[in-house]
Amino acid sequence: MGFFHFDLLKKSSKSKARLGVINTPRGKIHTPAFMPVGTQATVKTMTPDEVARLGAEIILSNTYHLYLRPGMGIIRQAEGLHKFMNWQRPILTDSGGFQVFSLSSLRQITDEGVHFRSHLDGSKHFIGPEQSMEIQAALGSDIAMAFDECSPFPCSYEDALAGLERTTSWAERCLKAPHAPGQVVFGIVQGSVYPELRARSAREITGLDFPGYAIGGLSVGEPKSIMYELLEYTTPLLPENKPRYLMGVGSADCLWEGVAHGIDMFDCVLPTRVARNGTAFTWQGKVVVRNAKYAEDFSPLEPDCDCYTCKHYSRAYLRHLFNAGEILGPRLLTIHNLHFTLSVMERIRRSIKDGCFEEEKNAFLDQYSI
Amino acid sequence: MGFFHFDLLKKSSKSKARLGVINTPRGKIHTPAFMPVGTQATVKTMTPDEVARLGAEIILSNTYHLYLRPGMGIIRQAEGLHKFMNWQRPILTDSGGFQVFSLSSLRQITDEGVHFRSHLDGSKHFIGPEQSMEIQAALGSDIAMAFDECSPFPCSYEDALAGLERTTSWAERCLKAPHAPGQVVFGIVQGSVYPELRARSAREITGLDFPGYAIGGLSVGEPKSIMYELLEYTTPLLPENKPRYLMGVGSADCLWEGVAHGIDMFDCVLPTRVARNGTAFTWQGKVVVRNAKYAEDFSPLEPDCDCYTCKHYSRAYLRHLFNAGEILGPRLLTIHNLHFTLSVMERIRRSIKDGCFEEEKNAFLDQYSI
Repeated sequence: MGFFHFDLLKKSSKSKARLGVINTPRGKIHTPAFMPVGTQATVKTMTPDEVARLGAEIILSNTYHLYLRPGMGIIRQAEGLHKFMNWQRPILTDSGGFQVFSLSSLRQITDEGVHFRSHLDGSKHFIGPEQSMEIQAALGSDIAMAFDECSPFPCSYEDALAGLERTTSWAERCLKAPHAPGQVVFGIVQGSVYPELRARSAREITGLDFPGYAIGGLSVGEPKSIMYELLEYTTPLLPENKPRYLMGVGSADCLWEGVAHGIDMFDCVLPTRVARNGTAFTWQGKVVVRNAKYAEDFSPLEPDCDCYTCKHYSRAYLRHLFNAGEILGPRLLTIHNLHFTLSVMERIRRSIKDGCFEEEKNAFLDQYSI
Repeated sequence: MGFFHFDLLKKSSKSKARLGVINTPRGKIHTPAFMPVGTQATVKTMTPDEVARLGAEIILSNTYHLYLRPGMGIIRQAEGLHKFMNWQRPILTDSGGFQVFSLSSLRQITDEGVHFRSHLDGSKHFIGPEQSMEIQAALGSDIAMAFDECSPFPCSYEDALAGLERTTSWAERCLKAPHAPGQVVFGIVQGSVYPELRARSAREITGLDFPGYAIGGLSVGEPKSIMYELLEYTTPLLPENKPRYLMGVGSADCLWEGVAHGIDMFDCVLPTRVARNGTAFTWQGKVVVRNAKYAEDFSPLEPDCDCYTCKHYSRAYLRHLFNAGEILGPRLLTIHNLHFTLSVMERIRRSIKDGCFEEEKNAFLDQYSI
């Protein structure tokens, strides 16, 4: 773990927002950071070069998907995920836990791990903490995530408690398992919507020596107000000198709120997924490109945007591409949405640096219609 | 038509292969040239920048498709196809004739033109030579094609004759119709597989003052040997000082043969279409990326290829992308296949220049398995 370290550069005086840098063997990650998602060894529609040019310093990839396809034999022969997919910067891999619970069928959870059937072909598999670490070691991600049990929403207190206890026990086993050279593991706090469980989970997980901590089990269907309340409560329980990662969050309003609550890292499929469905994010809110009202709109998605899409294409053209089922449509909207989301993070970082984060946050939320 | 002209730079001594340059207001086209197809105002999966970087100096776009969607109202407001799709180099538009015959339903051909129903929504339309010219003028293509009747294969002598006569009459009307500023119109020779009809069509069409001539009605399902025979017969009937365009042809072996018969321009959906289906062209022949034998093949599609795809990705990775249904798969194969096809044209041009076209052609065909 030698090289990995987090430098906290500045804290906002009026909120918990903080500016930092995560140093990894594959490069720096300026925080607060957004991680585009490359589920199947590709950020959908994009080349890695394009993702890097947009300013992404780290991407997330999914252990469950890559374990099933192409499988670890191929990833090992490719000498890891970076080489396989041609991405040189850091990669964070999730543990597979969340995906096993949400995608696979016939899953059976024991204290050892999870038996499940592949969503692709129904084949039987088992992943526990040791297997998750082994897969992530083969992937060679820079940041691996501890194997956890992500409570759904809603979730009974009893189930949330059982999940929490398993998550702690699995976290200990993950730390003991072998990792790839230079790879670090982050712990994950669970506890569903119950403050006392969040407190206990945070105490137990931060009691283990992880170089970073994630808050899991949020953004799983609960109202945003509940998420913000739990963030308000949970984030202060995490150590200040280590990065904090809010899993699965990526809408622009949530990014500002998350940072205000002291979060340093985010990931979400939202910008890329809605792009493929024809929706663009702008500083004023969403633009549903397919809408008939854009048929003769020859202005760009966003007038002042300097992304490749906005510099060269009109809403009318983008609408045409989606109507005609052309792949260039999802491509161009993905470029724009990732540019937008990464620009939001850049503005967040600059505003913390300039001491005006709260003012910028209010200004953003005032003009952004969710 | 002032600016448009064709310079014939060199003729091969051992075949009819020729080297030339077509000068247009939007730039030069070095011939023999291959035109990637951008049917719906986009070369599928690619940005125009990528297409240009691969070395394409002209693309083809389809009048029938653009007329139906997005429709001429939008194209006019966009100030033409170049601006709409962000492609600054020359565009050749087909006449819509071939597509009307092959894609639309309930078509009724009269001497005036063709009544048909849209393949998209069944709506009724009429396109004759004047309408085709009007649409192509609105598109603002650099080279428009005369509205013709493309005989299918097989086709009776009587039908081929009727199509030929209509094609000549329509060609005259196309020449009289208004064009966009700087736009030129090419005539099209028809006549199906009948040498005497080809001769008559060539005589009638070249009797009209077009700045370029196409051979239509080939590559419509007939054996390649028949196509080559008809080329052997027809090309010498076209004037030497004007570019000759063989429509719809683009497999590598046909490009060499076409050039050997004196053809200067080609277009075809083949390289881009097969790419989207997971097949790559290489100098040794086809690579069907999905094949299980490439699952653990970490070599590039083609060892010495300097395209972006071959420089950065393995067959195993490409196969994974196709198996996982990822858009990057079709993108990367399209890049490779267009690079391959444009490289074939470059090698053809260089070999004519260097006086070794026939040797290079034989060398190519020897190692290329069709």
